[in-house]
Amino acid sequence: MTTSGLLPEGFHDRLPPAADIAAGVERQVLEAARLHGYERVDPPLAEYAEALAARLKAGGLTNAVRFVDPVGQATLAIRPDLTAQVARIAATRMGHHPRPVRLSYAGSVLSLRASQLAPARERRQVGAELIGLDSVAAATEVVGVAVEGLTAAGIADPSIDFTLPDLVDTLAAGPLPVAVEAIGSLRERLDAKDAGGVAAIAPAYLPLVEAAGPFAGAVTRLRAFDTFGALTSRLDALEAIAATLPSSVALTLDPTERHGFEYQSWLGFSLFAAGAARELGRGGTYLIVHADGREEPATGFSLYAEALAALGAGGERRRLFLPYGTPADVGARLRSEGWVTVRALEPGDSPEAQLATHVWDGAAVRAV
Amino acid sequence: MTTSGLLPEGFHDRLPPAADIAAGVERQVLEAARLHGYERVDPPLAEYAEALAARLKAGGLTNAVRFVDPVGQATLAIRPDLTAQVARIAATRMGHHPRPVRLSYAGSVLSLRASQLAPARERRQVGAELIGLDSVAAATEVVGVAVEGLTAAGIADPSIDFTLPDLVDTLAAGPLPVAVEAIGSLRERLDAKDAGGVAAIAPAYLPLVEAAGPFAGAVTRLRAFDTFGALTSRLDALEAIAATLPSSVALTLDPTERHGFEYQSWLGFSLFAAGAARELGRGGTYLIVHADGREEPATGFSLYAEALAALGAGGERRRLFLPYGTPADVGARLRSEGWVTVRALEPGDSPEAQLATHVWDGAAVRAV
Repeated sequence: MTTSGLLPEGFHDRLPPAADIAAGVERQVLEAARLHGYERVDPPLAEYAEALAARLKAGGLTNAVRFVDPVGQATLAIRPDLTAQVARIAATRMGHHPRPVRLSYAGSVLSLRASQLAPARERRQVGAELIGLDSVAAATEVVGVAVEGLTAAGIADPSIDFTLPDLVDTLAAGPLPVAVEAIGSLRERLDAKDAGGVAAIAPAYLPLVEAAGPFAGAVTRLRAFDTFGALTSRLDALEAIAATLPSSVALTLDPTERHGFEYQSWLGFSLFAAGAARELGRGGTYLIVHADGREEPATGFSLYAEALAALGAGGERRRLFLPYGTPADVGARLRSEGWVTVRALEPGDSPEAQLATHVWDGAAVRAV
Repeated sequence: MTTSGLLPEGFHDRLPPAADIAAGVERQVLEAARLHGYERVDPPLAEYAEALAARLKAGGLTNAVRFVDPVGQATLAIRPDLTAQVARIAATRMGHHPRPVRLSYAGSVLSLRASQLAPARERRQVGAELIGLDSVAAATEVVGVAVEGLTAAGIADPSIDFTLPDLVDTLAAGPLPVAVEAIGSLRERLDAKDAGGVAAIAPAYLPLVEAAGPFAGAVTRLRAFDTFGALTSRLDALEAIAATLPSSVALTLDPTERHGFEYQSWLGFSLFAAGAARELGRGGTYLIVHADGREEPATGFSLYAEALAALGAGGERRRLFLPYGTPADVGARLRSEGWVTVRALEPGDSPEAQLATHVWDGAAVRAV
């Protein structure tokens, strides 16, 4: 790594062909969303830090790059996340549009510090948000678009891990009361699958420690646990969504997973490539806050292009070398036939130097 | 403008359909470059400020957003320009690749302050660089790719304004000596077309004040002025490039235009849409500095996606509404036929609310 000192930790150059592959993967995900009626929005890299913070989950701006704007003297922040900006657009400039509104986006997000789980400080976030609905029909569409996007991007065998972010709140407010001040620790112990910790706080929640697993079994266990029927509508919804997905998509359910779903409402999901430990993205249902305090339901997903590109197929790299002096109109014709042409601009240039796979011999295309 | 206070001055949301149009325009330019063998590089948004400054023209970093990296305590900068980063990649990580290397790029660049000429503080820069050559053949290819990119992006009638950035240096070092300390002011007075100012410094340069204009006439005037033959190779080169361009491209030559071409060598050019005053982008020949001090010639161009998108054709917006309850496989079939489908997720949804142009009536597609 002779070049490791060139860039600050957590920042990287993407070179050929990785940069082309990443751009292609991003395009495929956006195209899957476009075909379902999602239209692009493109919020700016920087915003008023205060306004952005209000739409991020608690503490979300502590990891954002901030600077003082010499124009207005306000503190601005480079976005650490794009969905907060899309929510702002939906609530303000597109607040008058009939619902649901379907929006897609792709852009860079920046973190001030890296974490062990996310060592890159700059990432490309790409996704789609359905604003105005968080129903089963909405979630079914959004999960379906995410799966189509992954498949189009070359992830042949995606898997989805569902979660129920407001599970503990729902039970605690209903059949299994927990002291308000203990709810946070209970959630945390459940997320950690710490049976001893859960038993010490609220023993009635112990069965949830073992509830996670392959989808069908986990749903069965949860229905057995839920003798009160408090979770029936949620489990029915999950099964309805699952029924619409191709059988090639592996499904799991981890009902008490909380990490990263702090602002989701009844549904959360993580997207994986089967067999890969690294998450490709996530999504779920949530609430958007309008200026008048009104809350509006929404459903969406975000993917990280780097994670996709690392797994997606790169495709074939075909380059046709045009020897020095090849007439310009020959090149134009070959490009119109779909070839990538690389023209020799000096007599000494060669197909090898230009990584060409094919050569124009003056009359026909030949493989190198 | 009830929403003008939402974002800091110089930052903007792009909404549908503008965001889709801008993304499409960017894609078209990159595709034109790809067909000529240019491959994507994707440098990071932030770099070490010092390293970036060394590759920007003098003072280039004074207008960059900077922040202290909490990880290494170094000062980092958000890039105000992408070509400096592409030059870095070409000189370092791709320094060992056979030349010429063809690279393309697209990304956001950020300015700390806006200027009257460039009121946006965030812009999307897209372009292509040919590293290793600055010959007539190199310039011909690069100008040609720029024109193909503009045409593909919907600019039917591009125009090019050529300039000769090192004109004064060449003349002053040869047939028309000027005191070294006066060269800067001479360049400035020529750029300002200030005959009095030029006469006061170096009267021999006066004919250059009137040299600019439509291409053929300007070349003729310059050849008449250049009785010494100091400009012959440059003018021959310009005519050779011009001869390869479609006749629909309007050409002008402003030999003493300097502003924005401070780091170009023998050739500079600005790209316009005929009739529009606003520049779409620019390019030219320049030198890349390697770590060992070696200088390498290069040729390239950059376009600003916003300027293109404002002029480019948006195309037709076709959306097919699928009434509530339309089977999923019908939607899939219609999307595979190229339709953008917008599915009703509630009984009350309507084609009007979803800005649909067409409706599925259960058996066929009908226009709204």
